[in-house]
Amino acid sequence: MGEVDAEVLAYTAGRDRILDLALVEAECMGTAAHATMLARVPVEPPLLTPTAVQRVIAELRKILADSAAGRFAITLADQDVHLAVERRLTEKLGELGRRVHACRSRNDQIALDLRLFARVRLAETTAAAADLARALIAFGRWHRRTPMAGRTHMQPAMPSSVGLWASAWAEGLLDDWILLQAAYDLNDQCPLGSAAGYGVPVPIDRPLTSALLGFSRPVHNVLHASHARGKVESAILSALGQVMLTLSRLAQDLILFSMPEFAYFRLPAEFTTGSSIMPQKRNPDVLELVRAKAAKVLAQAGLAAEILRAAPSGYNRDLQEIKEPFLEGFEVTISSLRILTALVKGLEADPEALRRGFRPEVFATDRALELVATGIPFRDAYHQVKAQLDRLVDQSPDQALAAKRHLGAPMGLDWAALAARVRQAATWAQRVCARHRACRDRLLNPEPA
Amino acid sequence: MGEVDAEVLAYTAGRDRILDLALVEAECMGTAAHATMLARVPVEPPLLTPTAVQRVIAELRKILADSAAGRFAITLADQDVHLAVERRLTEKLGELGRRVHACRSRNDQIALDLRLFARVRLAETTAAAADLARALIAFGRWHRRTPMAGRTHMQPAMPSSVGLWASAWAEGLLDDWILLQAAYDLNDQCPLGSAAGYGVPVPIDRPLTSALLGFSRPVHNVLHASHARGKVESAILSALGQVMLTLSRLAQDLILFSMPEFAYFRLPAEFTTGSSIMPQKRNPDVLELVRAKAAKVLAQAGLAAEILRAAPSGYNRDLQEIKEPFLEGFEVTISSLRILTALVKGLEADPEALRRGFRPEVFATDRALELVATGIPFRDAYHQVKAQLDRLVDQSPDQALAAKRHLGAPMGLDWAALAARVRQAATWAQRVCARHRACRDRLLNPEPA
Amino acid sequence: MGEVDAEVLAYTAGRDRILDLALVEAECMGTAAHATMLARVPVEPPLLTPTAVQRVIAELRKILADSAAGRFAITLADQDVHLAVERRLTEKLGELGRRVHACRSRNDQIALDLRLFARVRLAETTAAAADLARALIAFGRWHRRTPMAGRTHMQPAMPSSVGLWASAWAEGLLDDWILLQAAYDLNDQCPLGSAAGYGVPVPIDRPLTSALLGFSRPVHNVLHASHARGKVESAILSALGQVMLTLSRLAQDLILFSMPEFAYFRLPAEFTTGSSIMPQKRNPDVLELVRAKAAKVLAQAGLAAEILRAAPSGYNRDLQEIKEPFLEGFEVTISSLRILTALVKGLEADPEALRRGFRPEVFATDRALELVATGIPFRDAYHQVKAQLDRLVDQSPDQALAAKRHLGAPMGLDWAALAARVRQAATWAQRVCARHRACRDRLLNPEPA
Amino acid sequence: MGEVDAEVLAYTAGRDRILDLALVEAECMGTAAHATMLARVPVEPPLLTPTAVQRVIAELRKILADSAAGRFAITLADQDVHLAVERRLTEKLGELGRRVHACRSRNDQIALDLRLFARVRLAETTAAAADLARALIAFGRWHRRTPMAGRTHMQPAMPSSVGLWASAWAEGLLDDWILLQAAYDLNDQCPLGSAAGYGVPVPIDRPLTSALLGFSRPVHNVLHASHARGKVESAILSALGQVMLTLSRLAQDLILFSMPEFAYFRLPAEFTTGSSIMPQKRNPDVLELVRAKAAKVLAQAGLAAEILRAAPSGYNRDLQEIKEPFLEGFEVTISSLRILTALVKGLEADPEALRRGFRPEVFATDRALELVATGIPFRDAYHQVKAQLDRLVDQSPDQALAAKRHLGAPMGLDWAALAARVRQAATWAQRVCARHRACRDRLLNPEPA
Repeated sequence: MGEVDAEVLAYTAGRDRILDLALVEAECMGTAAHATMLARVPVEPPLLTPTAVQRVIAELRKILADSAAGRFAITLADQDVHLAVERRLTEKLGELGRRVHACRSRNDQIALDLRLFARVRLAETTAAAADLARALIAFGRWHRRTPMAGRTHMQPAMPSSVGLWASAWAEGLLDDWILLQAAYDLNDQCPLGSAAGYGVPVPIDRPLTSALLGFSRPVHNVLHASHARGKVESAILSALGQVMLTLSRLAQDLILFSMPEFAYFRLPAEFTTGSSIMPQKRNPDVLELVRAKAAKVLAQAGLAAEILRAAPSGYNRDLQEIKEPFLEGFEVTISSLRILTALVKGLEADPEALRRGFRPEVFATDRALELVATGIPFRDAYHQVKAQLDRLVDQSPDQALAAKRHLGAPMGLDWAALAARVRQAATWAQRVCARHRACRDRLLNPEPA
Repeated sequence: MGEVDAEVLAYTAGRDRILDLALVEAECMGTAAHATMLARVPVEPPLLTPTAVQRVIAELRKILADSAAGRFAITLADQDVHLAVERRLTEKLGELGRRVHACRSRNDQIALDLRLFARVRLAETTAAAADLARALIAFGRWHRRTPMAGRTHMQPAMPSSVGLWASAWAEGLLDDWILLQAAYDLNDQCPLGSAAGYGVPVPIDRPLTSALLGFSRPVHNVLHASHARGKVESAILSALGQVMLTLSRLAQDLILFSMPEFAYFRLPAEFTTGSSIMPQKRNPDVLELVRAKAAKVLAQAGLAAEILRAAPSGYNRDLQEIKEPFLEGFEVTISSLRILTALVKGLEADPEALRRGFRPEVFATDRALELVATGIPFRDAYHQVKAQLDRLVDQSPDQALAAKRHLGAPMGLDWAALAARVRQAATWAQRVCARHRACRDRLLNPEPA
Repeated sequence: MGEVDAEVLAYTAGRDRILDLALVEAECMGTAAHATMLARVPVEPPLLTPTAVQRVIAELRKILADSAAGRFAITLADQDVHLAVERRLTEKLGELGRRVHACRSRNDQIALDLRLFARVRLAETTAAAADLARALIAFGRWHRRTPMAGRTHMQPAMPSSVGLWASAWAEGLLDDWILLQAAYDLNDQCPLGSAAGYGVPVPIDRPLTSALLGFSRPVHNVLHASHARGKVESAILSALGQVMLTLSRLAQDLILFSMPEFAYFRLPAEFTTGSSIMPQKRNPDVLELVRAKAAKVLAQAGLAAEILRAAPSGYNRDLQEIKEPFLEGFEVTISSLRILTALVKGLEADPEALRRGFRPEVFATDRALELVATGIPFRDAYHQVKAQLDRLVDQSPDQALAAKRHLGAPMGLDWAALAARVRQAATWAQRVCARHRACRDRLLNPEPA
Repeated sequence: MGEVDAEVLAYTAGRDRILDLALVEAECMGTAAHATMLARVPVEPPLLTPTAVQRVIAELRKILADSAAGRFAITLADQDVHLAVERRLTEKLGELGRRVHACRSRNDQIALDLRLFARVRLAETTAAAADLARALIAFGRWHRRTPMAGRTHMQPAMPSSVGLWASAWAEGLLDDWILLQAAYDLNDQCPLGSAAGYGVPVPIDRPLTSALLGFSRPVHNVLHASHARGKVESAILSALGQVMLTLSRLAQDLILFSMPEFAYFRLPAEFTTGSSIMPQKRNPDVLELVRAKAAKVLAQAGLAAEILRAAPSGYNRDLQEIKEPFLEGFEVTISSLRILTALVKGLEADPEALRRGFRPEVFATDRALELVATGIPFRDAYHQVKAQLDRLVDQSPDQALAAKRHLGAPMGLDWAALAARVRQAATWAQRVCARHRACRDRLLNPEPA
């Protein structure tokens, strides 16, 4: 390989050799499904015999085992996981290894691999989000009567509770789940058989491979299957970006309210970095990084969309640059969810510090509304409260909270319903993972053991 | 008003006076629902009497009529639609006009208005997308047997058809609809009654207003209702961005393939701009603008997310800067869909020019696959084709197409199924709009006529 | 005009009719320079006679006067400022009005107009930035000995001063000026005469028009003049984005440190919004909007770059979508600089509240360093301080400040040098504006009065 | 280390261990300069003796040698290059290793390292840009008389030349150099001695370290030195983004014009990827990746700015997330410049194919202008040309080109001046690198050899 060729290869292959290690399972599943289907294509002689399929699948099982043990490498010459698996099959099975490649192209292979990968990762994201929501609900329920000054414009504004604060983030994650599910639905269509975007002149059975791989349906139009590459990733990254947005704002609140000037919350020591000389200093590095990493995932979502916008239709190599942000977007989101879950589990609230935040004016709006509710005209109520703000000094945060009982208010939260919605998300995630595993096992162990 | 105050007002109010004119209907609906609910709050004396509610609603009807006739203005002193409607009610109804404001805040008012606005606009976006998909399917079906060289890396690569090309974009829009529906679901929760994010000390009935306004449910946690402001807009903008991404790539293809060097397609003259001296020149300005406007909507989606990421929890004025990109995002997306629909309806294909694009090598891959399907080993088939590329000169594009019959391939497209999916989207959009209108009419004409 | 044509015109012309009103002066200057040059092109008969040039310039003066009086309108049929000025000249001067258009195209006209517009706005931005820097330096110098706890990770960390805090932002603005100047240099090249990007077959004198219009030199390659459209705007928006970044972070600090929990600073009442019922509440709406508007300018910079990245070379209509963000980017940046200047002039610091921020641990690091400076080994010094943190209770913030005297430290700030650098920026801005005005007056009043 | 601690460390340290290997030289230079300065601080006993400084510098030389040989590792416990170097010094020199750390903090160390790194990389970027500009000029000059149809809206519009096309990109790179120089100036200020952003209570000599390290001046305000971290990177990434924008558009043109339908240019085979079966197919993967990588650098510039916008003042850990995009931005830009330079050097133009692009209408505008220049009224000239478009069939591209001789037009390009400007950029880059090397050698070999 000449110097120029090496430079071109380095420029074009990028970090695929490393990144694609995450796609070995998907590649093996796709190859198994494709081989199984090829054996059933009604042409004579058959494209593959049942025995040949068995041999291919047996070798794929070995590849998976090697990969799990860290022994499957993608060489520089391979460039990517597709050629690495094909090379291995050809080394072991000769011409048969190449026949498996018939009626496929690297285009539908990578499109498929990314969708299989995303399926599991979307479920893991949901599971991790449900865990965090559960931790927030537990924290909030424990502190459901602990007063906390509600703020607007960051200024203390109205009586609120730690319970309202904590469970608001949980409901935010449940909203994000709506978007994760839509991303899942979009992703849940099988691109295999679209080849390079124009199909093949062989009567392949795309519904069969779609079903074998556990998709709800094949992408219909084969050119759309090509267009959707990048687009699905971009839509998924947008959904992950929304999760990170929730985390970033939660992190900002935790940074603010754990400052010594507030001391509402105490971060667990193991999630902060100290200073060798100032042992009481607790730097919230983890939370600061959550905030920055949210910006990163949002930027990656924008990047994927922009790469796509400028790429003409049909396959273009531009799409390769979406792979790394895509894999990284999942990695960042899931690790952020997990680390925040552990942090919230160790979070402590300081009720005394929280009560100190109740300056008299915090009670003013509620007091005026209470007067209105007794029949005093709106304007009079306001003037009355405004004229006697000093009387609010004696107001009790607890009583103020107790008065807010309508649906969703501090004392009107339906904790059981929230918990049920979280369980629903967790169950959905488990089912997706279980189905995926069953599908993988069926494909790679087609006979009874 | 001093000079400083005027400068501050100009800086803070921005273009709200203009933008908010789009929200008058929503503001009136929300006020009617809130007044209806207030009259039923179980306190003595009642917050509003049934008669008072009637008077308020009668005035709201007049405001709506004035607005429809272009006679409802938002003054600089009003700042926004909320104060403009409140001022009008107070001018006409005195103290009653202010009582209607009890237990609400501008925070939940604007959050509600934007959700009501988005509900209708999401349906209109879907309807416009369905129209475009229908036009693409009609064009594609008419040309389902017209050959077109399929490309990868922009190079002619494989036999394809105009039908495959056109219907691929239609399926892309159907994919986008999945994301629009998720945005709709996220949006379909009523924030009213959350007040400034901390609820009120009065037993208001949030499920009632939610039902009156036609939402599927109230947002639960009132602080989350505040957090969701901006976030819902950001998620909607992301979905609109995905629609624009589809349009941008369609536009790019149309620009390319209508260049004289290709002449595959002829753009209708009324959608191009000419030159006074070169009458045959057809500049695809509309398509170029679609491409640029896609970048704009994507940037606005990113902007909304970033504004939110840096804003602390609870209401912050930062959110105001999301309103303009949000309204504009809908405006740009819907107008782009409509103009492309009209353009596609007038689009002409030139079969001769399309056939000229079939260089011999376009047939190579398919030919090799056909040999493989007859039992010739993969490697041998490839070598055989490669050695006799000149034989491919005589290949017929029509025959090549005819051989691609599997699901989703040029000759395996299920036009009826595609059309049915498009109808489903159109029907959904109609139902949403009809329900919204019925809901509005019920709220503002509560008694039998 | 049919319905389709109206729709196409609305889609393509966008808001140009409004936006282009900002470009009337530039269009008149460019037309005057071009006419002056045309009269000197060595062809027979001359393209324009000296008398004809006089008549054109006289009419341009009237257009400018009308425009200043708000009487110059751009009609829907005009579409933009170029056709509006051409129409007016043709109405008044007949065929002569059209002759002025020879050897130009709308492409180089708009490129020129935007550069002339940007020249003045970049100077105004610099002037406004210098004003804010001056206000910050005045505030900081007044409070140069007022202690303020320096923070890392938002935690109190080390002794600092209000003077250090305030003048840091001023130096930030001086850094931004480096980028504004580079944007100015990039912009300071005349694109006139590039026509549609390929020049003209007439010996026009591009150095002459460049000099008449006050540019340092013409863009050389005429195709590059076309490529640079959009790119110059994008580079300028990036520089404006850096200014807004400085403002956003200053705004964030002011929001934080004016919270009642800190009360370090008191915002002038006229820059905050209150609450009818909570008179003591001071919502920092202006500062929150600065933060959000910074995100907007950054998004616009990204948008301009992305529109360009996807546009092929040569003129494409995509570029039109850069105009609005470009004009708006200047508008937002300059108004934000001005409102913050007024706010900083009214800012008050509360020395007592600032001193309360000095928890004992704030002194720890400095104390250890002082021990090191007396010869105690590093490690021993740290252990000694750590073991006796309670002794730090008696430390005086003033003494701690007094010890930090090296260059750039709280007591080592060179106020005179900072002020001199700010003056330099202000002088630069004045010179640019003066040269521009002189150039305009010379072009439009070519003879002695 | 417990499980939680490991997770936190993995989350917070990220890829620093790998990334920081690029900063070893900078860290050693900074440490040498700091140690040299410490020895001269006028306190008794001295902070460091001259002999101690010699020992430190000797060990730093060894670290650099180890690093050059790939033998210097950053362990997980080290976290970053600062602690890795400190640990090594302490292992070898005992307490002396830690004394060197006095009056510094990791904050000013990393700020310094990134500026030293950026200094060299900005020069390398400029050198690589000059190389590409030189290759483009050579290609353009060779083909300065080769006709090429100039396009607007991608439609053939006016006579142009390959020379104009190629040298336009070169001038674009020269424009980018203006922005690279501004980024260099911004970067060329020494942050050392700002410690954690609040200075130290020891009379350190910041001008001395600034001079020793070859900076033009120290950052003045120490808090600004902290604020500027991230901001300098963001401004540099914006400048790199502008370079990539130029490359992306050049790449788009090359992709388009090397399509078989145009065949204007032939890409060197080693920069394209073929197909095993279609040997004549030349996929421009490298160019597609340039286009996508441009989007990446632009996204990274936006990301850096947004991370900063949301981070409060003073050091926050968010900044760490800017390091990777920063290092990567340079890597991508420089490798893209180099690979395009090699590609352009192998580029071939096909004059016949280029001539075929001259449809008659390409001559229309120029012909009308020529008539105008002979005295025919503008309107008449246009009508005359329009009525006789068929006469343009016989026009010669060469003659049309020959008529465009004004400055910057196809036949009015000043090749020598362009080449001189490119040399100026290359010389600047060499000087920066030479000064940096001299500075490094002086610091690490302080005595005469």
